[in-house]
Amino acid sequence: MTSHQTEFCLVQEKGTWTRSERCQVKEGKVSDARIYENKSEQGVTWTVVSPIVFTYRVIQCRDLLDPSNDTLLWGHIGDEELQSASRNDSKPVKRFVVIDETVHELYGFRLAHYFESRRVVSKILPLPTTEENKCLELVAKILEELHKFGIDRRTEPIVAVGGGVCLDVVGLAASLYRRRTPYIRVPTTLLSYVDASVGAKTGVNFAGGKNKLGSYVPPVASFLDCSFFQTLPPRQISNGLAEMLKMALMKHRGLFQLLEAHGRKLLDTKLQPSEQDDSAVASTSIAIETMLEELAPNLWEDDLDRLVDFGHLISPELEMTVLPALLHGEAVNIDMSFMVYVAHLKGLLTAEEKERIIQCMKGLELPVWHRDCSLDLVQKSLQERLKHSAGSLRMPLPTGLGHAEIFHDMIEDAVLCQVHQTWTEELSPTGNK
Amino acid sequence: MTSHQTEFCLVQEKGTWTRSERCQVKEGKVSDARIYENKSEQGVTWTVVSPIVFTYRVIQCRDLLDPSNDTLLWGHIGDEELQSASRNDSKPVKRFVVIDETVHELYGFRLAHYFESRRVVSKILPLPTTEENKCLELVAKILEELHKFGIDRRTEPIVAVGGGVCLDVVGLAASLYRRRTPYIRVPTTLLSYVDASVGAKTGVNFAGGKNKLGSYVPPVASFLDCSFFQTLPPRQISNGLAEMLKMALMKHRGLFQLLEAHGRKLLDTKLQPSEQDDSAVASTSIAIETMLEELAPNLWEDDLDRLVDFGHLISPELEMTVLPALLHGEAVNIDMSFMVYVAHLKGLLTAEEKERIIQCMKGLELPVWHRDCSLDLVQKSLQERLKHSAGSLRMPLPTGLGHAEIFHDMIEDAVLCQVHQTWTEELSPTGNK
Repeated sequence: MTSHQTEFCLVQEKGTWTRSERCQVKEGKVSDARIYENKSEQGVTWTVVSPIVFTYRVIQCRDLLDPSNDTLLWGHIGDEELQSASRNDSKPVKRFVVIDETVHELYGFRLAHYFESRRVVSKILPLPTTEENKCLELVAKILEELHKFGIDRRTEPIVAVGGGVCLDVVGLAASLYRRRTPYIRVPTTLLSYVDASVGAKTGVNFAGGKNKLGSYVPPVASFLDCSFFQTLPPRQISNGLAEMLKMALMKHRGLFQLLEAHGRKLLDTKLQPSEQDDSAVASTSIAIETMLEELAPNLWEDDLDRLVDFGHLISPELEMTVLPALLHGEAVNIDMSFMVYVAHLKGLLTAEEKERIIQCMKGLELPVWHRDCSLDLVQKSLQERLKHSAGSLRMPLPTGLGHAEIFHDMIEDAVLCQVHQTWTEELSPTGNK
Repeated sequence: MTSHQTEFCLVQEKGTWTRSERCQVKEGKVSDARIYENKSEQGVTWTVVSPIVFTYRVIQCRDLLDPSNDTLLWGHIGDEELQSASRNDSKPVKRFVVIDETVHELYGFRLAHYFESRRVVSKILPLPTTEENKCLELVAKILEELHKFGIDRRTEPIVAVGGGVCLDVVGLAASLYRRRTPYIRVPTTLLSYVDASVGAKTGVNFAGGKNKLGSYVPPVASFLDCSFFQTLPPRQISNGLAEMLKMALMKHRGLFQLLEAHGRKLLDTKLQPSEQDDSAVASTSIAIETMLEELAPNLWEDDLDRLVDFGHLISPELEMTVLPALLHGEAVNIDMSFMVYVAHLKGLLTAEEKERIIQCMKGLELPVWHRDCSLDLVQKSLQERLKHSAGSLRMPLPTGLGHAEIFHDMIEDAVLCQVHQTWTEELSPTGNK
């Protein structure tokens, strides 16, 4: 069984790659890829090891739709020389934009005006990008329109403007078109600003399961303009604060303190920055920074131990069960609230810490309990998690305010039952309180 | 515009990733990913650079469907300890297999017997995986059946058994399911043995265009068993030899000489190895080796200059136009034949070299000319190529027997016209010869 293995580098000379046992070359390139060769009686076994590097930009900006702002057209190009070359190209600029239809009602006029002012040949496609419509058919619809419009896949990125569903669906369409067409995310909700915009995941629901189909292909760039929040209903602000609270609980005590102290103000101002107060800018920046720290080293989720999964063990099942009653962040918050009780019962959080977290959640106007989050649903969700996480639960739990650990053992039914009972007693409207 | 940029490494301690300006850590891990931060008046810009490493095995083997052979079940696991652990796991083994329906008629019984003998819980799904059916609907069909059957996406790879279309379609389904489920390729045609099996591409046709949708996700393993060739019709053998000839012309004079000298025998024996003659083994191994050299450093095709595109500039258009009249390798060969004439006219090949190549093609029973490969189609295809290759034609052409270069300039219409005329005169059945 043990046969001799030879390691080969790959060197390119005059456009032709050849393997070589020495990783040196006078002229030409050396690749980071390797080929290992084993010869046996059965034939040859080649093992290919090939790294792909993803690069993407997450850009905070203001007045994205102001025709004097270049970001929407050229912000995705990091290299200044390249950017300047693209800008000065005589070829007419083309952009294919998918926009959520509600966002289109509010901002479609300004978007069209932007492209007109900049003399961009554009196709703006408004779609009902709701959780219920998040399916493969919507992806096919986008692909058909995209193909009809026609773009240069190297230089004309697809643009998605909307909430998380819109960004996820367009991301999947873009990652499929010609096996990968660059795309840009423009989040218009707080939730997608701090969540969908900073990672690589794309996806649609399938067979009743949330995000069962998708890919891990990051956008070339995300353009973050918080002025879109001004037109959000208050519930959508709370929805986004839930994902920010997740990062706070997992790894940033300072962010927790910000949300705890300034939650009311963040809700009231819809996180619009002002000269007197930087809590909105500070809290969103920390949320993104902490998220990027966790995502960048694990872009394809090869490591199954993920702090960012906090709030996402029970919530997918809950969200799909009660659809459209709960928004994503609300379902996540109910999951986090339950897990805070688990952490308390396991002795990881003091009663005071638990109470502060629940009060903070309530202050952010987030639901902390839900009738349909039954013991049965909790058990089923954790079993499902166990099945798909290589035989270990990998449950992130807070171990204090702003730090966490991943726990691997399944929680006993008796414990879950007890937690669920206390949680319901303390937090349900008909509970003992 | 120029602001200060800070480079951050990512270090993990106790399960939490944090960014750090120093890439050192006492305990824990350091990631290869980097985050760059720029602060300006508009806010923060983060640039994420994150490498993903793909590893896959291409394994030549014999008697893949013999129940005493472990390869089909465990060959994808490279690490011997891990392989042994999987083998000894008490959990019943499950496999979801998609098989071309013609292959199923020939080998379905043996496949079912293999799984029964090994007590594997399996679902075998035969599908008509023809070029005409290579569409998103077929992917959806596979996904539905897969979801119904249920697999552990970490340990139960999807298996595709068939020709290139089957491997491409199943690859796409697998790359979408839960954002990436491992899959295994078992090629049953010579063409897919030397071509689809060794790369990362998956795909389906869309809107009349060949492979317009897809992904770049390699299988965990490809199992190459040439005994499947025994049941192939002769035309399918020629079909595969065309892609081997491509690699020969681009970069391996020895392979060209093998195909030139032993073409007839390779056809007659259907590349079955014998003790007296190793030309079948030698030629397929070289074809795979040269292909891997070109693919491994460029798995996601970020470099647009690709020798493996030889024969693939005109052929996609031709293949889709006359479907199902030409097999893929046949269309590729007609394209290569035309390009050989281009290379001759450009003075890259001598008349003798051109003649040897055309004779070799004929010896492999491959078409060297086609009525529908009109001057108009050639021009349209090259224009299309130009449009999608960042403004340069990037045309690989042979510059002798077994070496090649990439040419960037568009060929003038007058030259194309002249080549097409000579090519037709010399090679069409009604030509001057």
